[in-house]
Amino acid sequence: MNTPAVSVSAQLAPLDITEPTLLLDSNRAQANIAAMAAKAKQSGVLLRPHFKTHQSAEIGQWFVAEGFTCATVSSLAMAEYFADAGWDDLTIAILVNPRQIPRIGRLAQRIKLHLLVDSVGVVSALANAGGASVTSVWLKIDTGYGRTGLGWKDTESILAVVRCIAETGCLEFAGLLTHAGHSYQATSTSELHSIYQQTAERLQAAQSDLTAAGLPGGALSLGDTPTCTVTTDFSAVDEIRPGNFVFYDLMQLAIGCCDAEQLAVAVACPVIGKYPEREQLVLHGGAVQLGKESLPGKNNSTVFGYLTDLREGSFGPPQLEHPIVSLSQEHGVVNAGPQLLADTRIGDLLLVYPVHSCLTCGLFDRYLTLAGESVSRR
Amino acid sequence: MNTPAVSVSAQLAPLDITEPTLLLDSNRAQANIAAMAAKAKQSGVLLRPHFKTHQSAEIGQWFVAEGFTCATVSSLAMAEYFADAGWDDLTIAILVNPRQIPRIGRLAQRIKLHLLVDSVGVVSALANAGGASVTSVWLKIDTGYGRTGLGWKDTESILAVVRCIAETGCLEFAGLLTHAGHSYQATSTSELHSIYQQTAERLQAAQSDLTAAGLPGGALSLGDTPTCTVTTDFSAVDEIRPGNFVFYDLMQLAIGCCDAEQLAVAVACPVIGKYPEREQLVLHGGAVQLGKESLPGKNNSTVFGYLTDLREGSFGPPQLEHPIVSLSQEHGVVNAGPQLLADTRIGDLLLVYPVHSCLTCGLFDRYLTLAGESVSRR
Repeated sequence: MNTPAVSVSAQLAPLDITEPTLLLDSNRAQANIAAMAAKAKQSGVLLRPHFKTHQSAEIGQWFVAEGFTCATVSSLAMAEYFADAGWDDLTIAILVNPRQIPRIGRLAQRIKLHLLVDSVGVVSALANAGGASVTSVWLKIDTGYGRTGLGWKDTESILAVVRCIAETGCLEFAGLLTHAGHSYQATSTSELHSIYQQTAERLQAAQSDLTAAGLPGGALSLGDTPTCTVTTDFSAVDEIRPGNFVFYDLMQLAIGCCDAEQLAVAVACPVIGKYPEREQLVLHGGAVQLGKESLPGKNNSTVFGYLTDLREGSFGPPQLEHPIVSLSQEHGVVNAGPQLLADTRIGDLLLVYPVHSCLTCGLFDRYLTLAGESVSRR
Repeated sequence: MNTPAVSVSAQLAPLDITEPTLLLDSNRAQANIAAMAAKAKQSGVLLRPHFKTHQSAEIGQWFVAEGFTCATVSSLAMAEYFADAGWDDLTIAILVNPRQIPRIGRLAQRIKLHLLVDSVGVVSALANAGGASVTSVWLKIDTGYGRTGLGWKDTESILAVVRCIAETGCLEFAGLLTHAGHSYQATSTSELHSIYQQTAERLQAAQSDLTAAGLPGGALSLGDTPTCTVTTDFSAVDEIRPGNFVFYDLMQLAIGCCDAEQLAVAVACPVIGKYPEREQLVLHGGAVQLGKESLPGKNNSTVFGYLTDLREGSFGPPQLEHPIVSLSQEHGVVNAGPQLLADTRIGDLLLVYPVHSCLTCGLFDRYLTLAGESVSRR
């Protein structure tokens, strides 16, 4: 591979990095946001981006700059954080935890809050506790992932929950919401197209069952980064909620959902060991910095990330010849080969692309942009 | 399985838990500390416990109560945290990151600090920066794990580093240190005995090479929880550094290193979904709370934890019939079977034993003891 003449360490010298550090290419992240915004606009679908990946009030402002006024989060605490940052229209995209209902009620008095339910019991619990403010509830539908939600064909249960919502008087039925998480296991874009198509059709079928029973069909919401990235026509649904697209990662690259030029985060790790006999380098950068998500590599190996470099102020392509082949708590072992081994000294910095950016970013409390700015995280 | 008459939720009611919460059985942790302390004392070996598992100044005090005055940590930041908490004799058990040498120097002026090196270059860098205080350095030896350290048979390199340390005048050669991390892949206690034996012999061989060359042999230090738990005679070495033993976990139980009655942490997770058709429950408790470490389960399945319950104020045995079979960012899916499914309501709490307690505890910023006390974490 044609590597740049100037090393990563030399290029990063102005940033004064001394320990494993989460680096963000803000230009790429902003371009990813703009691209998804443009696509949603063209399709006439509401894009309610999922903020679980970045969890940063400052990055939230990049979405504001693109005209976004609503978002999705994955926990009540995250909703409170973004409400404090000025977001007043949020969906908590995890089923309501009945133990948090009093706290949910307090947040619902401050902002337009959308909740997820899939049982009559939780709807009743919300209604019994609520009344101070109308809260919008989505019915979670399982369209094939098999995690949460009522089965899309389980018409009896679907009708029962929607009727129960209507009867409360204090809850507003938003519509049917699903997460096709099995898209993360897809191996081609054509498979993703099929998953998107099937997911949308199953939501529509459940919606038809509601209207056939004289009930409101509500809106339809779906949204995982893999299917939303490959799809251009969202006319079958009303709202999409992808999140990972802000940074993408090696997993999305492997599925074929993004180009290497869209990978917006990498972890800078100091080299602490050099082992010529096995042509390996050891990084300060292990499971507590990178996370333990893995991808299959060559010869049935397990890969926890690939090195990259810096080119013209941005990250280079993933170096498939330099996988992270093992991770312990604080250590990562890299296959270096003779050239990288010769070029690298202990104390140099190397850059690692994460397998799953949502989990890796969750292990840091800030980003450092390639321009040297610190960006906070919840 | 014979389950207690009173549910986990009812027993935990006084703790007022509303979200995924890391629970600590402090009696078990203290018993684990006392047992390892007694074994070390009987064997006459110095126990320098690794604090990376608990990372808590308060739990550190439980070690003080057992007479401990020194400890091991896995990062400079962790060393600073425990130095602030009063620990004045710490080993940072990761190779020196040359970028942190100025900060290391500041800490070395406050406490007795022991560092790890495996190259002449880093020894020179330490010497060039130091001088204000004598710092003790261990030479890291690779006795078979294949991560960091000089190969135990690489006599030429070993002699070169030890000579270099002696020549600095400001660094003190502590001895030879290893980590037999491959013990975590062992499948029986007899295999662990073999690993311990081989590790100690290889350290001794490297030490003999030093003394044969007229150099000081230094002390010998090893220490992973699996081998230190099964070993009773530590006379071959001077110091042991196990850490995970304070809590143990399902991985250690699977290897045969602990009994179920020694498992000291579990995560309380609210049930948010109930799916009779597939006999599964879904917990608020996913990769960001439990970590993604896994164990092989029945029929080549992957298991991310097992449920347990509460018995007489302590955790029960792991319920092998109730594995966590999949994890996403915030969700965990549990195989419930008909009885648990019937007995459980949405909003109930279930307890999950983690696969690897070091990583799971690292995802929380405090512990809640079964007695309802909050214990802080770094």
